[in-house]
Order: sequence, then structure tokens, then C-alpha cells
Amino acid sequence: MLRSKTEGVFITLEGGEGAGKSTQLARLSEQLEGAGFPVFQTREPGGTPAAEALRNLLLFGEESFCWQAEIMLHMAARADHLAKAIRPALAEGKIVLCDRFHDSTWAYQGYGIGEGRAEVLEYIRSLRQVVGGEPDVTLWLDLPCEVARQRIYRRGGKLDRYEGQQMQFHQRVRAGFQDIAEKDPARIRRVDASQSLEEVQAHLYALVRQHMAGEGAA
Amino acid sequence: MLRSKTEGVFITLEGGEGAGKSTQLARLSEQLEGAGFPVFQTREPGGTPAAEALRNLLLFGEESFCWQAEIMLHMAARADHLAKAIRPALAEGKIVLCDRFHDSTWAYQGYGIGEGRAEVLEYIRSLRQVVGGEPDVTLWLDLPCEVARQRIYRRGGKLDRYEGQQMQFHQRVRAGFQDIAEKDPARIRRVDASQSLEEVQAHLYALVRQHMAGEGAA
Repeated sequence: MLRSKTEGVFITLEGGEGAGKSTQLARLSEQLEGAGFPVFQTREPGGTPAAEALRNLLLFGEESFCWQAEIMLHMAARADHLAKAIRPALAEGKIVLCDRFHDSTWAYQGYGIGEGRAEVLEYIRSLRQVVGGEPDVTLWLDLPCEVARQRIYRRGGKLDRYEGQQMQFHQRVRAGFQDIAEKDPARIRRVDASQSLEEVQAHLYALVRQHMAGEGAA
Repeated sequence: MLRSKTEGVFITLEGGEGAGKSTQLARLSEQLEGAGFPVFQTREPGGTPAAEALRNLLLFGEESFCWQAEIMLHMAARADHLAKAIRPALAEGKIVLCDRFHDSTWAYQGYGIGEGRAEVLEYIRSLRQVVGGEPDVTLWLDLPCEVARQRIYRRGGKLDRYEGQQMQFHQRVRAGFQDIAEKDPARIRRVDASQSLEEVQAHLYALVRQHMAGEGAA
């Protein structure tokens, strides 16, 4: 995003199911606020009333969309989220912490559902360009799929349509995140999510502070 | 669309509110079937269960979407409609008669809501390229806005969010259709919708038969 120096920092948390994103996002938020930074916490799909309505349709709806429409709906929710929540928060100088963003579309719709087919990835790439909104830093909580699966079942509760997928699906999703991390190492930082909660938290916080120090020095 | 010679014909009906599209679509369909052609009748936004769910959200929903998301939702519905209904019907050699399509997005979201702003038109143009699906012929039922308004009130019933807009909005929509008709005269045929139902019907049928004869001779 084209932003002035006085604007906030846009940080996204990415990763498969059970990697601990929600927990870590809450902890990171608390830690940053404790250090005196204004934080805006949000998530995708969702983050605005209109985008949450689409989240419901996508995760729990009865209707099945063709892959093109599914990707487009994620992008529609994202456009609303950017216009009404993320960009205004950044303009106020806040640190925006967002649970999932563009990279999840690449990993889930592109690799998980789309199985990495060139036409699907090209479709996502084109729409991403139209929607815009690039994070400053992306923290990827990486976890072997077997460990993730055990965590999800231990947690219990109703599974959404992505959590309920087979192991192969989750392996493709992980490969999708791996692909992004290789292509964009300056933005994406891999964090080993099999460590303890405290270790992961410390690593995430260090990465964020490091990025902010780097920006300040630039 | 890239289609073989044995495939069907994709015909869209366009125009503002009250121009008589639904009535004429039913009559045209009947007339073509009477002449022995297989017809598939459909409409936008909608045409598949998933796209109809989006239609409800767009026309009668409580949520308000930013303009980008609104356009994207129309395109998502269209992608589903193309994949599951229109392309399969064309592949079976049918004449597809569709009430509204890409041109309505241009006229309503681009000109009506977007007031013809360059960034909105460019947004629509980019997404249209991603979604694809060009009609063979588009029949534009053109009617002065004052006449249209009288018809809508005479018809009664609940107005959707487009029908309920001010006169200026409908004038911009008409200018949007005018713009397309000027840019793409080979595809778009203007029909004077202030004529009698029978006259309009005869004109539409003649245009469709003329197109089919032209295709056969080519």
C-alpha cells in the first residue's frame, strides 16, 4: 500500500488450522499495547459487518460456489475490509494485526482447493492485483499437519468447511504457504509453531519489533 | 467466448427498470421455442442457487458493501452462473436468453452508483476480463427515464434498491448503456422500448433471427 511515514503498520498472521494464530494474535496485541502502541485487531474472512455476512456464506453456507466465485467472494470481503476497517486504522497510525489475508487465499483456494493448478493461481493473482492491500510483514505460523490435526481434535467444537478437510488438503495448504515464503522472503517470516506458546509469542514479538526498528531507521 | 460452430447462441437483454425486459424475454423465449429452437431462460444477478443467494444479499440485504465489494459480488454471482448454467446450456446447443449481464454492471455500478468515475470503470473492466463470458448479441431495451418511472409505479409492489433510486441515478444508468452501445455497435442492438409490446417483440425477434441467419451464412 502507498502510505506516508506517519501511517501504521500492517501485519498479517498466516498459517494452517491449529497453528495457534488466534491465541498468538491476542497475545501479540496485548504485548504491543502494553508497550504503548495503538493496535487494531481483525480477521479474515470478515472484519466488517458486510464481510462477516460473506464469511458466514463461505464457511457455513448451504450453497456451493464454483471455484472462481469462491475466490471472488473472498476478494469481495477483503475489499470491504480494506476500505472500511484496515485502511482507516492504518491512516490513524495503528498497528493492524490481521488473522489471515491474501496469502490464505493463495494457500487455501489456490493450493488446497485448486490443487495448485496454473489457471487457479493466475485467477487469484489477477484479482489480488485489482483488490490491492499488501501487508508490511506477514508472520507465518508453520506446523506439521499431523500436529495441527491433533490440536484441532483436542480443541473440539464444530469444524468449519476448511477444518473438516482431509490431510492431503492440509498438506497442499502448507505447500502453498511454503511457496509464498520462498517467493517473498522480505515480507514473510516463518515461525516454528510447534514450539511452546511462550516461545512462539517471544519470536513473533521480536519479529514485529525488529520490523518497526528497521522502518524507523530507514 | 471461444465456442465451436455447433454451440448455442448467447443473447442478453439489457435496459433500465420498467423497460419490459422480463415480459419480452418470456415472449421471445416462447416465440423461439415455437420455431423449434431449444431455449434456456435465465437472469442476473442470479441463475444458480449460489448466485441467487448473492442476489438476495445485493438487492435486499441489510449490509452495505463498499463499491469495490459490490462489483466483486456481482462478478462472483456471474462466475457461478457462467460455470454452472450458461456455459453448459451453450455446450448443449441452446439459445441462452439472459435478463441482464456484464453491461448492467457497467451501467448500474459504473455509471449509476459510480457516477462514471474512471477508477470505478477501470475496476469493472479488469474484473470483466477475469470473469469472461461475452454475449453474441445484446438487445438493449431503451426507454426515456420518465416513462420508465411511470411504468414502475403503475406496476406497484416492493421496489428493490436499484428501482428505489432517484431520477438522476436512472439517467446515469441510461447514459451507461448508451456508452456501451456506441463502443460496441456490432454486439449491441438498441430497441425502442416505448413502442407497443407487440412492436418491441417483433423487433427483438427479427434481430435474433437476423443474427442467427448471419452466423449460419458466415
